[in-house]
Amino acid sequence: MSGRIFTVRLSEDENAVEILDQTLIPNRIEYLRLETAGQIFEAISELRVRGAPAIGVCAGFGMYVLARGMSGDLLPQLERAGEYLISSRPTAVNLSWAVNRMLDCARKHSGSHDELLSALKSECTAICDEDKAVCRAISENGLTLVHDGDGILTHCNAGALAAVEYGTGLGTLLLGKERGYNFRAYCDETRPLLQGARLTSFELSHAGIDTTLICDSAASMLMKQGKIQACFVGCDRVAANGDTANKIGTRSVAINAKYHGIPFYVFCPRSTIDFSCKTGNDIVIEERSGSEIKTNFFSQPVAEESVKCWNPAFDVTDAELITAIVTERGIARYPYTESLRKLFS
Amino acid sequence: MSGRIFTVRLSEDENAVEILDQTLIPNRIEYLRLETAGQIFEAISELRVRGAPAIGVCAGFGMYVLARGMSGDLLPQLERAGEYLISSRPTAVNLSWAVNRMLDCARKHSGSHDELLSALKSECTAICDEDKAVCRAISENGLTLVHDGDGILTHCNAGALAAVEYGTGLGTLLLGKERGYNFRAYCDETRPLLQGARLTSFELSHAGIDTTLICDSAASMLMKQGKIQACFVGCDRVAANGDTANKIGTRSVAINAKYHGIPFYVFCPRSTIDFSCKTGNDIVIEERSGSEIKTNFFSQPVAEESVKCWNPAFDVTDAELITAIVTERGIARYPYTESLRKLFS
Repeated sequence: MSGRIFTVRLSEDENAVEILDQTLIPNRIEYLRLETAGQIFEAISELRVRGAPAIGVCAGFGMYVLARGMSGDLLPQLERAGEYLISSRPTAVNLSWAVNRMLDCARKHSGSHDELLSALKSECTAICDEDKAVCRAISENGLTLVHDGDGILTHCNAGALAAVEYGTGLGTLLLGKERGYNFRAYCDETRPLLQGARLTSFELSHAGIDTTLICDSAASMLMKQGKIQACFVGCDRVAANGDTANKIGTRSVAINAKYHGIPFYVFCPRSTIDFSCKTGNDIVIEERSGSEIKTNFFSQPVAEESVKCWNPAFDVTDAELITAIVTERGIARYPYTESLRKLFS
Repeated sequence: MSGRIFTVRLSEDENAVEILDQTLIPNRIEYLRLETAGQIFEAISELRVRGAPAIGVCAGFGMYVLARGMSGDLLPQLERAGEYLISSRPTAVNLSWAVNRMLDCARKHSGSHDELLSALKSECTAICDEDKAVCRAISENGLTLVHDGDGILTHCNAGALAAVEYGTGLGTLLLGKERGYNFRAYCDETRPLLQGARLTSFELSHAGIDTTLICDSAASMLMKQGKIQACFVGCDRVAANGDTANKIGTRSVAINAKYHGIPFYVFCPRSTIDFSCKTGNDIVIEERSGSEIKTNFFSQPVAEESVKCWNPAFDVTDAELITAIVTERGIARYPYTESLRKLFS
């Protein structure tokens, strides 16, 4: 991430993973040194570090830091530590992927203790560097789609705070800023968890980008006024036909963009494309507690306890609403069935 | 309003206006007795009673209550009281309209003190009864558009809490409930001021209607799932061509409804139709403080103080997106230019 703020990194003394405590954003900017397995576990489970790529990188660095504190036969100790770390957020695929990559590295190694530590450092550094490279390539591709001065609408947070640098949906804005582009970013606050207010408006304004926060439902009027030239979102899963699951509200942004003739772009690494899902109907949508709508963040409840809520965490955006899907290997366009396959050829 | 809850009424002893204190909703249901000009002023200025019709009725009853406490020549005292009450919310048209109607009644009267009090009572009762009759007629017309079991999406609050009974946008649901219809109401929370959460979900669930609260941006997914058969909104102003100004977010609901082939209905008294506005472009949109997005209702700020906000209170829904405009005199349909005029012939 540009400027003074970073999401996750190995400390200079290599005895700790350093993270920005995202639970305190935007009210306090505090970094934590995670030195023990317990501290790493707590930081991941309490969402002090969040976003699949950032969690993976944190776990990779964490395994290396823990290995440095071990003596004797490292592998069984690392396996126990890895099992423990993976249990901090069982559903985060990048977490177990990164831990297992570090364990595979240890298992394949046959040299000295110091040589193994050196190999583990290379592996966790590679995990971090690969994430940076993927996000940077996505951002480079995104930059071909927009122009200096464009107004860009964002939804949720797919930025550097969820990764190491650039992120996916926000990477084009951050890379463009470095290249001297003057974008105007409009951030949907993204109810109910307000990632757009708490995280996106924070990181874009700290990167020096002209940033305006709006309520989700105000985006349509901005589009009508001609202020928006493109919509940028990340995504959680892309089906084989191009239907895309992302944070609740993404579908409405896309429908409004279509009505106003504004391009709608989805940004993601190729690993997000799931050919085993034929269409969006195959994507299961997580429904979460109504307390996120009625009580979270508020000083007192905004609706009675007895009122029912419907609180899906994600929605599905129909492929026909998506102008292009931007990955590190290139840009796919509607109709997506062949276009997405080509990214893997 | 059905059930035990009411918005505004004359007390049985006629020495007070009784109102539900809406600033405490949904956390406490408390009624206030307003006996003095100072108490009525405070209740209106602090939004304890809100919604144009409810404010007008409160002011009408208030003028009568104050007159009952006066001795000697009533008219000059009433004129001073009216001027004072009108200053409690200078931009509320219904407030000055109701006060002036009471003053006109006093000016035209030539009988005894007691006869004047009797005339004033008739006048404020008429203001209240006329509001009830208009809302009821709007609701009756609305009922011709829906069916038992329909899922109805609402945005903001255009219910009995803004009027005396039924309200406009919610009246069809409330009247339908009395007639045995089983609607499923889905209430947009309506950021940033959360009128849908705080008021609409409150009054619909207290009326015994199956009520589900959602985030504004979740409406699109509900539509895709086939749960919504119609959208109901009130409005603040209708232009001669049918373009309609209403709470921010209404436009997005209408665009989503159009995409999903769901009817979108606007409910309002004929007094809301402003033929001096040719199109929505003639309607000035009030922009409000960013604190409503960043700090209102929250236990701590959700974005940094330095982050810019754009916070329009209203948006404009294009006439072509509106299936019908429902008034007390009948239902207008697109294209609206002739259809709206006919309601006044």
